[in-house]
Amino acid sequence: MPDDVDAVRAANAAFYSAFEAGDLDAMADVWEHSDRIAVTHPGWPTLRGWPSVAGSWDAIFRNTPYIQFVLTGDEVAVVGDVAWVTLDENILQTTGGAAESQELSGARIAAVNVFVRARDGWRMVLHHGSPVSAGAPDA
Amino acid sequence: MPDDVDAVRAANAAFYSAFEAGDLDAMADVWEHSDRIAVTHPGWPTLRGWPSVAGSWDAIFRNTPYIQFVLTGDEVAVVGDVAWVTLDENILQTTGGAAESQELSGARIAAVNVFVRARDGWRMVLHHGSPVSAGAPDA
Repeated sequence: MPDDVDAVRAANAAFYSAFEAGDLDAMADVWEHSDRIAVTHPGWPTLRGWPSVAGSWDAIFRNTPYIQFVLTGDEVAVVGDVAWVTLDENILQTTGGAAESQELSGARIAAVNVFVRARDGWRMVLHHGSPVSAGAPDA
Repeated sequence: MPDDVDAVRAANAAFYSAFEAGDLDAMADVWEHSDRIAVTHPGWPTLRGWPSVAGSWDAIFRNTPYIQFVLTGDEVAVVGDVAWVTLDENILQTTGGAAESQELSGARIAAVNVFVRARDGWRMVLHHGSPVSAGAPDA
């Protein structure tokens, strides 16, 4: 079980590395390519299936010149061949197209990532992130 | 597997019934009482463990005189002893304390609910709901 937790943490870290790098190939390696996968980006409706999930990453990468994550409060649970990770994404990013219109902003996102064990490692089947309001109750 | 999906749908329905009824005892029956459970209400930080999760429901029930869910687009996945449900919560609710200050409002929440199989049925281990922005891309 400690090995499983470590392997899940590694898969989770690979997700955020791919996100920071804006690397669609690396993101494709992180995810299971199936109909049952789903992603809910902050403020977005849920998108299902690899083509829709991949399309959302492509759109986000094209509109995010720079993003950096500081991950805090991560907790991993493993039950059989499924694992879920809850954590806070403390984000620093620039958004917008032309360099002169880019703005640096920060945000705190509460996220859950679900993984399923495959033969060669853990694959993401769900990512759901949502903005934490400034006036929200403390955890 | 069809039996599992039906049982998970029943557990998911029991969650929303308890929520609509504002019934903390019924909500307690829905959830696993453990440290690994987590809830992320819209705009809230993630709360972990049954005491914190139960406390959040108590606070929500006390501040929600009326809430009604119309659930759409639900999809169920089962892998071994874990299941996850993604769906849209179309909500009609009143909030606020004194009757004269209550306002009826609608909201669309994208949610994921994760369940783990117990001896006597499926127990919720995670609920994460987040507001869908009016201007968000279509699913």
